[in-house]
Amino acid sequence: MALFTVDPAFTAGSVFAADWPLCHVRLQDDARFPWLILIPRVAGATELEHLSVSDRTTLMEETIRAGAIVRALAEAAGRPIDKLNVAALGNVTAQLHVHVVGRRRDDSVWPDPVWGRGSALAFDPAARARALDLIDLG
Amino acid sequence: MALFTVDPAFTAGSVFAADWPLCHVRLQDDARFPWLILIPRVAGATELEHLSVSDRTTLMEETIRAGAIVRALAEAAGRPIDKLNVAALGNVTAQLHVHVVGRRRDDSVWPDPVWGRGSALAFDPAARARALDLIDLG
Repeated sequence: MALFTVDPAFTAGSVFAADWPLCHVRLQDDARFPWLILIPRVAGATELEHLSVSDRTTLMEETIRAGAIVRALAEAAGRPIDKLNVAALGNVTAQLHVHVVGRRRDDSVWPDPVWGRGSALAFDPAARARALDLIDLG
Repeated sequence: MALFTVDPAFTAGSVFAADWPLCHVRLQDDARFPWLILIPRVAGATELEHLSVSDRTTLMEETIRAGAIVRALAEAAGRPIDKLNVAALGNVTAQLHVHVVGRRRDDSVWPDPVWGRGSALAFDPAARARALDLIDLG
């Protein structure tokens, strides 16, 4: 039986933030947007339909929880968001994952989606640590 | 109490396809991609968190159902898909809606997301009618 592992592609652009009941949670290392990635710990899953109905319900609720944290991250940075963007794409990295991204009308790519637009701006270490602390509380 | 209505922005680029238990379902009028839009019939909702837990579970299951139909549309057109893209964005039209889009590695914007890329190519009437018939069965 295959064991769950995180695709190495995620480790390049994001950092581990938390383990929730279903998902391995990562903070995208991009100071442009408050942005979490949820990766269900289900080996081999690439589509939502590969999760059980029960896991799908959990994923939805963990998505809501991530949205609240994204809002809190944005407020802590003094830049409250106007809209959440939630997406399971997987065209570049097939392993099933859900992006939860906070967007502002004045952000650099609004109203376009964030994927494939512009370049990531890594957090400075203190800001990254503050974000990870806040996720721990959420 | 506000009544549910579909934002007129949707009627410009998509056609009514079905009413499911939670969602008003539309077919994006774009022959480039098999693409459904699910709009929960909940007045005023713009974020997933605005739905009840029960409605969120239903939305997840209707998203799975839409994914199966998108696969079937793609197969009926002789162009089976490689990946589903599922997203609740709402930067342009805030009313809560979920896109379920079928993607192929050889489609015109792969691996980028479809939103804001290229121009829609309206279905010819016969193809649109065939797609709507197939959705009716799904």
